[in-house]
Amino acid sequence: MRKIAVLGYGTVGSGVVAVLERSAEQIAKRLGEPVQAVKVLDIRDFPDDPIQKYIVHDFQEILNDPEIEVVAEVMGGLHPAYEYVSQALAAGKHVATSNKALVEAYGAELGEIAKAHQVSFLFEASVAGGIPILRTMNTAMIQEEIRQITGILNGTTNYILALMEDTGATFEEALKDAQARGYAERDPEADIEGYDAARKIAILASMIRGKHVRYQDVPTKGISGITKADIEGAAALGGRLKLLGSCSQEDGKLYVSVEPTFVPMNHLLAAVNSVFNAVMVKSSMLGDTMFYGKGAGKLATASAVVADILAALDGSGVYEMHTWSKETDEPSHPADRPCRYMVRAEGEKTEHPLIASLASTEGGFSILTEQCSKQELAELLEQIERRAKVRGVFRKVEE
Amino acid sequence: MRKIAVLGYGTVGSGVVAVLERSAEQIAKRLGEPVQAVKVLDIRDFPDDPIQKYIVHDFQEILNDPEIEVVAEVMGGLHPAYEYVSQALAAGKHVATSNKALVEAYGAELGEIAKAHQVSFLFEASVAGGIPILRTMNTAMIQEEIRQITGILNGTTNYILALMEDTGATFEEALKDAQARGYAERDPEADIEGYDAARKIAILASMIRGKHVRYQDVPTKGISGITKADIEGAAALGGRLKLLGSCSQEDGKLYVSVEPTFVPMNHLLAAVNSVFNAVMVKSSMLGDTMFYGKGAGKLATASAVVADILAALDGSGVYEMHTWSKETDEPSHPADRPCRYMVRAEGEKTEHPLIASLASTEGGFSILTEQCSKQELAELLEQIERRAKVRGVFRKVEE
Repeated sequence: MRKIAVLGYGTVGSGVVAVLERSAEQIAKRLGEPVQAVKVLDIRDFPDDPIQKYIVHDFQEILNDPEIEVVAEVMGGLHPAYEYVSQALAAGKHVATSNKALVEAYGAELGEIAKAHQVSFLFEASVAGGIPILRTMNTAMIQEEIRQITGILNGTTNYILALMEDTGATFEEALKDAQARGYAERDPEADIEGYDAARKIAILASMIRGKHVRYQDVPTKGISGITKADIEGAAALGGRLKLLGSCSQEDGKLYVSVEPTFVPMNHLLAAVNSVFNAVMVKSSMLGDTMFYGKGAGKLATASAVVADILAALDGSGVYEMHTWSKETDEPSHPADRPCRYMVRAEGEKTEHPLIASLASTEGGFSILTEQCSKQELAELLEQIERRAKVRGVFRKVEE
Repeated sequence: MRKIAVLGYGTVGSGVVAVLERSAEQIAKRLGEPVQAVKVLDIRDFPDDPIQKYIVHDFQEILNDPEIEVVAEVMGGLHPAYEYVSQALAAGKHVATSNKALVEAYGAELGEIAKAHQVSFLFEASVAGGIPILRTMNTAMIQEEIRQITGILNGTTNYILALMEDTGATFEEALKDAQARGYAERDPEADIEGYDAARKIAILASMIRGKHVRYQDVPTKGISGITKADIEGAAALGGRLKLLGSCSQEDGKLYVSVEPTFVPMNHLLAAVNSVFNAVMVKSSMLGDTMFYGKGAGKLATASAVVADILAALDGSGVYEMHTWSKETDEPSHPADRPCRYMVRAEGEKTEHPLIASLASTEGGFSILTEQCSKQELAELLEQIERRAKVRGVFRKVEE
């Protein structure tokens, strides 16, 4: 029997135990032996749950158990997760984590500790839960130069935007609906202000750069200011607004942002609805690829953690997830290069050579610009403002 | 330096050499050493190509070179590919192949030889070229029970159907356009009659069943009979026709087919256009996932072969692609279970409780049925035929 430990018996932790049980037969078949969570760390007791016999309250019991090969860290937060994970790696145990805050803040260091002790530090579940995007970048794309990643990385905001579009709900109404369904937390700030997506795009950007892209350095704008009129304006132009995290590399420079973005209807990301996530990658030889699935949810996230646990246990080699150095990489804003924009305004229309298309909306109009620099955009907005009020400016997704 | 050999210097073979060159720096960084194709087998000479110094005409030169660790088989066809690959594996060399005919026919046996000699037999490029679907099933989804796979597995037919829809071209006109662009071969039968997609879905079905699903046993219908009226009928019902390969498991039984299928516009597969491929997987815990990318093309296919070469060379363990036994599994047709159908007819409409929606088209109508058994469908068609001629019957994609 191969033995593992789970840190935290919350939603994801109980999911990990459930997935190991439900898939026991095929896991045993693949590894040649069953895998069992023999210690589960939690401050609570669960007297009515069969898990109780595995519950421990002291991390040392896990750290000092030489039979435990893998530690699944699914407790969240930076501390004591960081201390536990670094100690586990240093003790020669593999670690699988779903904790994006931990990976974003300490990924470089934890990757180094893992390498020094020849164990795996795996974190597939930390970005777009049920989508195996990190593993794909780490294996199928070794030979690719990744030029651009654009993703719907937060299911809560995608659900809210889709609901506003489908039902005409306001942002506040849609948020309440999402909270009632359990798709949004009672304190929804991390989701709706884009911080959750910023952590995920920071991890993806760090992976392709090999340097630490700090999430605090990602220009981030959430969806709390999105109005029904913005959504109608996008629809009038044949598209929809999506909260996209994007990063791209050009001439050695890195461009990263999280922001509500205009996506034309014929773009594959426009078809991603409800709480689903999707990550589109542009790379040197494969061209466009896209990976779609559940970004969150107990079983999907737990399944991704279990896949990492099995990767650590499978085969005789160490499965190494390539991380990044501690050196930081300062991203630029995508708008530092010429971009196309959707502009929504109330008032009278204007004419300008940078306007590629224009659609009338109630009390105003929306335009899609040609490619333009920041300076050109500013001049265009100034001209529009002579006869109207600019109410929204959104980048168009890069092709 | 790590040494490999390439069998066949055609489109994919020259692509493999090109990808190894273009990505030399990052490959060397990852593996710690450069990877070089030191022998390339072809019956031809290439006097004006720098490859000439590596060209050999006798497979024995590769087989007997102990420094060659991986053989990339990209020559296609069953023989001598089968003999070369089995000898290479038995000689302790890893094999990466893009040859779907070989994998479909001999995958079970070649997987056994690889296992016996502790080498990797990898064939990511054989199904949906640039999409890492096999690797995902083999790694990220070990713990999942895969219930259903539905895919656009042939770019040629997807291009033809999209062009018919976009431009109103007939099948013959769209085929000619595809041939002129190099998307279809001069003898297009394998693509347009669905045999190419049947081989790919047979490989996917074999992987999830652990038994050999022969492509000859896959009920297969191509697109050569699709008319403009069929496409208009699908559009009138809010969908489009796509050539889908599908397999699903229920109560231990396997259902497989390749056939033009009605896909509603809000289904993600409806958004897959041009020569792109996409594979949608339904599994026990992850739910729906989808993987999208180029299904063919020199660099995309070669990149997938190179990813397999690197997987074979990377790490100290053997990367084992789980194959299937020689025992065959007899698939049933998906219509052996209740399905929903699109029916197109010319003549007067009819009413029937199994009709879920009906749209008028020029000279006739199209309907979408409720879920119905073969028997119920036959009765419905009989009733329609009293006042009209049934011109097309297509399954609706399973949700």
